[in-house]
Amino acid sequence: MIYADNAATTKMSDAAVRTMTALLGEAWGNASSLYVHGQKAKEVLEKARADVAAVIGAEPREILFTSGGSEADNQAIRSAAELGRQKGKTHIISTAFEHHAVLHTLERLKKEGFEITLLDVHENGLIVPEEVEAAIRDDTCLVTVMFANNEIGTIQPIREIGAVCRAKGVLFHTDAVQAVGHLPIDVKADNIDLLSASAHKFHGPKGVGFLYAKKGVRLTNLIDGGAQERGKRAGTENVPGIAAMAEALKETAGAMAVNAARQSAMRDRLIEGLSRIPHSALNGDPVKRLPGNVNFCFEGIEGESLLLLLDDKGICASSGSACTSGSLDPSHVLLAIGRVHDVAHGSLRLTLGEDITEEQTDYIIKSVREVVEYLRGFSPIWRDLTAGKKEFIL
Amino acid sequence: MIYADNAATTKMSDAAVRTMTALLGEAWGNASSLYVHGQKAKEVLEKARADVAAVIGAEPREILFTSGGSEADNQAIRSAAELGRQKGKTHIISTAFEHHAVLHTLERLKKEGFEITLLDVHENGLIVPEEVEAAIRDDTCLVTVMFANNEIGTIQPIREIGAVCRAKGVLFHTDAVQAVGHLPIDVKADNIDLLSASAHKFHGPKGVGFLYAKKGVRLTNLIDGGAQERGKRAGTENVPGIAAMAEALKETAGAMAVNAARQSAMRDRLIEGLSRIPHSALNGDPVKRLPGNVNFCFEGIEGESLLLLLDDKGICASSGSACTSGSLDPSHVLLAIGRVHDVAHGSLRLTLGEDITEEQTDYIIKSVREVVEYLRGFSPIWRDLTAGKKEFIL
Repeated sequence: MIYADNAATTKMSDAAVRTMTALLGEAWGNASSLYVHGQKAKEVLEKARADVAAVIGAEPREILFTSGGSEADNQAIRSAAELGRQKGKTHIISTAFEHHAVLHTLERLKKEGFEITLLDVHENGLIVPEEVEAAIRDDTCLVTVMFANNEIGTIQPIREIGAVCRAKGVLFHTDAVQAVGHLPIDVKADNIDLLSASAHKFHGPKGVGFLYAKKGVRLTNLIDGGAQERGKRAGTENVPGIAAMAEALKETAGAMAVNAARQSAMRDRLIEGLSRIPHSALNGDPVKRLPGNVNFCFEGIEGESLLLLLDDKGICASSGSACTSGSLDPSHVLLAIGRVHDVAHGSLRLTLGEDITEEQTDYIIKSVREVVEYLRGFSPIWRDLTAGKKEFIL
Repeated sequence: MIYADNAATTKMSDAAVRTMTALLGEAWGNASSLYVHGQKAKEVLEKARADVAAVIGAEPREILFTSGGSEADNQAIRSAAELGRQKGKTHIISTAFEHHAVLHTLERLKKEGFEITLLDVHENGLIVPEEVEAAIRDDTCLVTVMFANNEIGTIQPIREIGAVCRAKGVLFHTDAVQAVGHLPIDVKADNIDLLSASAHKFHGPKGVGFLYAKKGVRLTNLIDGGAQERGKRAGTENVPGIAAMAEALKETAGAMAVNAARQSAMRDRLIEGLSRIPHSALNGDPVKRLPGNVNFCFEGIEGESLLLLLDDKGICASSGSACTSGSLDPSHVLLAIGRVHDVAHGSLRLTLGEDITEEQTDYIIKSVREVVEYLRGFSPIWRDLTAGKKEFIL
């Protein structure tokens, strides 16, 4: 099996698995308990907090552990909205191609009286800091722009957007679920006030994530109850999972340069190979993109059939976000960068692991080429296109 | 070490650890992905849902996986409140000795305009169904009463309270975090509409729980985003953790009768032994209590010192809920059953595991007796009490 869907989830690293299983036997106490057995769990928890903080240039007290990236996104945005509401500021700026954890939270806030501006995404999948600046109003309380897009992999000019927000005194949140561990992040230099991350995207366990909140940014609880996480996130701490996340993050981030070099070489080889398929097009910027991300549209085919046939060939890929699979709607991300409905339906996302080889890459190119050709042989749309009854777009 | 704090957390069972670690290697795919590797994860997830549902007499589709009991409590109560609000019903009934995950959620709803009635808890730690009935008004949208109390272990007349609610057409939620796996529960026969549970209280992993919501009870999302959990709880499913929870629940619930017989025999032996310490008193009902729960007050001592000295003797215990440790306030549960401030401060909770032995029980009795005597030797309150300057309460 060639697993090329690392944006959907990654396999836990051996070190993370070892950390977790060891702690299930050693540090399973309740971290809030007074006795030594509980305090041992507490120590592990705080060590993990310091380790996670160090990777993104934060202070340990600025890290709040959550059940994952979606929870962190929800809490970050709702907290900023609440702070805004208290000052009569109820305008939020975001983009049309955010993850649904952001977009659906914004939709809920809209029902609660907030006004939401979704910036257009340019054809290359990038947001322009000047356009963020122009959209900021006196009543803007939050700008939320993802660090790197989960479907097309484009990396946003986060530091510049953060600088714009800071100059205007507006909070800046970034959904960095795809970036943490894979791209250099320094929350201070990058002018980030709130940042969300998810462990299973960097070889940590599922069900664990974190929220960075700059000191002084008051969080609102999503989950009320016990006094865990400085009273901002109730629930007995998942110490083995959190420690495994920290372990995975140290490991992945520690090998970032090496990983990125290999992945981007294979990414570019894939892009080069797939570009040679007629009437295909890369989605997103060819350079400012995640090292492992490749996203193509192929005219005249259905993404779902493409995936099933690639699966038969031992290749795990996706047509977009795993979170929205099962939906018949085309990707909102592809629509946001201007792909028309028909073309967006024929999309393929390949997100490479750190251990991807040249041989595997070439096998993927060969397989995609065969499958696209095969599917076009059956496709009524392709027939119309080649018969001149319909015009090619790509 | 004698671990007598199973209400705070339990050690994962070997079977649950095995299930989890095996799945980290086998079913780590994203359950929302189309390819076989993702579908394998999906199958494991749905098997776990069916297993969990079966234990409490629910349908699989009535089970929503969460990150734990606190999240489930929050979502259950906020959902019922939202349904009430839509009908102009903004009165909620609960009790003074609920877990903070319930009480703090209710406090938040109060700020949002809900009216909250907290029923008095009787001296024996029990809620009376007739008093629930009398408190229900035309604008009541929810009654939430815990199945068994986490500090004093009293088991509430849930079926009767549920019947009262059903007759009046009011939703009934129960925080069953301490009960699931340990007490027989049949959500249909028990007239329960919403029920919260936490895996790590029945030898499952931390960071996992579930919410039962009777078919037709529309849930409100706490976490918006992807379409996971029928669109009611966003975030990539923690399949290994969820499967481990199901495994632990089947195992613990399957041995319920045997476990309860052993635990309640040891519980009663402990109660008998500790009662012989002068000026001590059992908190809660002697019969209608969780099989493993013992909770005592000792006059003239501080609970915290008691715990630290017991820790020195190799006994892990607590003075109340782990979630509130670090707080200087006495337990709200003990205050609710009428203990005065001074007495509530000298409390000890022992929650026995399924493998507790007679020898360990006798060692606990001996140790507590020694430590209480030792501490009283230093206590100014005890000096005043024995000198007749202050009156004994217990």
